[in-house]
Amino acid sequence: MRVAVVGAGSWGTALARLAAARAEVRLWAREPEVVAAIRERRENTLYLPGHRLPEAVAATGDLSEVLDGADIVIMAVPSHGFRDILRRALPHLPAAAPLISVTKGIEQDSLKRMTEIVLDETGCAPESVGVLTGPNLAREIADGQPAATVVALSDPDAARAVQALFMGPTLRVYTNPDVVGCEAAGALKNVMAIAAGMAAGLGYGDNSTAALITRALAELTRLGVALGGRPLTFAGLAGMGDLVATCISPQSRNRQVGVALGRGRRLEEITAEMRMVAEGVKTTDAVLALAGRHDIEMPIAAMVGRVLYEGCNPADMVAGLMGRAAKAELHGIA
Amino acid sequence: MRVAVVGAGSWGTALARLAAARAEVRLWAREPEVVAAIRERRENTLYLPGHRLPEAVAATGDLSEVLDGADIVIMAVPSHGFRDILRRALPHLPAAAPLISVTKGIEQDSLKRMTEIVLDETGCAPESVGVLTGPNLAREIADGQPAATVVALSDPDAARAVQALFMGPTLRVYTNPDVVGCEAAGALKNVMAIAAGMAAGLGYGDNSTAALITRALAELTRLGVALGGRPLTFAGLAGMGDLVATCISPQSRNRQVGVALGRGRRLEEITAEMRMVAEGVKTTDAVLALAGRHDIEMPIAAMVGRVLYEGCNPADMVAGLMGRAAKAELHGIA
Repeated sequence: MRVAVVGAGSWGTALARLAAARAEVRLWAREPEVVAAIRERRENTLYLPGHRLPEAVAATGDLSEVLDGADIVIMAVPSHGFRDILRRALPHLPAAAPLISVTKGIEQDSLKRMTEIVLDETGCAPESVGVLTGPNLAREIADGQPAATVVALSDPDAARAVQALFMGPTLRVYTNPDVVGCEAAGALKNVMAIAAGMAAGLGYGDNSTAALITRALAELTRLGVALGGRPLTFAGLAGMGDLVATCISPQSRNRQVGVALGRGRRLEEITAEMRMVAEGVKTTDAVLALAGRHDIEMPIAAMVGRVLYEGCNPADMVAGLMGRAAKAELHGIA
Repeated sequence: MRVAVVGAGSWGTALARLAAARAEVRLWAREPEVVAAIRERRENTLYLPGHRLPEAVAATGDLSEVLDGADIVIMAVPSHGFRDILRRALPHLPAAAPLISVTKGIEQDSLKRMTEIVLDETGCAPESVGVLTGPNLAREIADGQPAATVVALSDPDAARAVQALFMGPTLRVYTNPDVVGCEAAGALKNVMAIAAGMAAGLGYGDNSTAALITRALAELTRLGVALGGRPLTFAGLAGMGDLVATCISPQSRNRQVGVALGRGRRLEEITAEMRMVAEGVKTTDAVLALAGRHDIEMPIAAMVGRVLYEGCNPADMVAGLMGRAAKAELHGIA
């Protein structure tokens, strides 16, 4: 079997390394220094230092070399470059191979998910376009910490092929036919990590956090269902799993922004100190725009938006959330 | 409106205090010193010290006084004493009042949930017997930390009455018609907190924990659905909410037992040092018996059982879990 991995960031590289146990892997890197490091030192020193890449991983900067004859294509490029790189890959995309996006995010302006971009740009059959997603920090998985992920593809044979490719002694891979739900959950969760951080920054405890995360999941589910996802998908690894990891991990940049906001710092101050902008600072806007387009109420996301973009006080926002009208728990979901 | 709260532990007392904003509350305490403290000092010094009880809360050791003329009955006694106290309450139970259990647990031997015991022992109409459950630490709620809970009752009017009774500026109350699902989730979760603790004790990070909690929820959902609950209930406050709180809170005794087991200590040593036995040490057995009765696979709960009762090594158990056959994510649920 031949696997193409397009994108040699930390996650693309970690996946290439896992797939190399069962397949011949070609890994495309944008940066010539990454290609050189892998070729010469068997290590992606820039994005996944400290993890040896086996000989079964061949690095190249040439998309045709990576894609030619691939049985499975993994797209692992950042969301903002996804459409552009896909266009460059297009002439070389093998016709029948399943195409799996592992990119979490939505395209600015179009508000499209990555698989929607794939269907826009390519002639791929919808049933063989999917995602792999879940609570997956590349470094923890490369370190061999026990982890689980979900591959969503509507073609069950293709799903099982991808499952078999990545399943290993420290990674369990589950299948789920709901591509839209799995992808939406991963793409939209970052706003909720900012909210969870705010709760911590305001000094609230584990019960408040758990209640907030649960109601955040209800919001994501409402929006995901409006987009065409299935409610139970959001209770799985792509939804709850990824959300819990992002909301409790002190490593999550989105959570860090929330903590600082909860402690009363201003967004400009916080982002000025961070090397990379937290994804949620940009995607909150997009999440709210999507919710508006589908007429879905998302009170927690809206609260985060008002703190981020209008400078509102987090404690006042929490009081506003608590004072909303009484509801049924599955309102807007089932 | 008159509310009867049977049981003046920390949670019963906290609920009596909340209800007193809208109703005349009678609170039954087993211990005469609790009755005396509330009468003389307006404080349950034994179980909820530091929180003043308003005059609208009348404490008594007489069940007839508490129950006579009550419009809503809240049962807040420990699971091991539930049936006995219910039998003593029986002659005084008002015929038409909704009866709400806030007790999490299942009865040893019979493996029954508290509402099953109510239906066994009383002539209450099934549609007015329900539960109030969620990620609710009595002290955090009494302190006014933002929290959310769910009231499950199949009679929607009764559900809304209980919702209105407890809803306040720092507690959001949601309704859910699924009594079995809400009650099962709360009753069965403790075994999973031991598992989450073990993962932490073994040194695993937030992604492993999030994956474990998510798969733990899938197990609880499978069993809960077999008992008659609805899958989406488990994604709500009674399921995911309570599970996340119990699994991440360093205050959770079940989690503490798991952490110590993960670090290689023996159960006898751990329990010898704890003042109160962690609930999950006893209920794991009951959860596995229930799963066996309904022929439900619960690999994580079974792993906890083997560590607790057979002295198996947690690291070996994790390796066994990771090596299971590949599955669809919603296997056994949908």
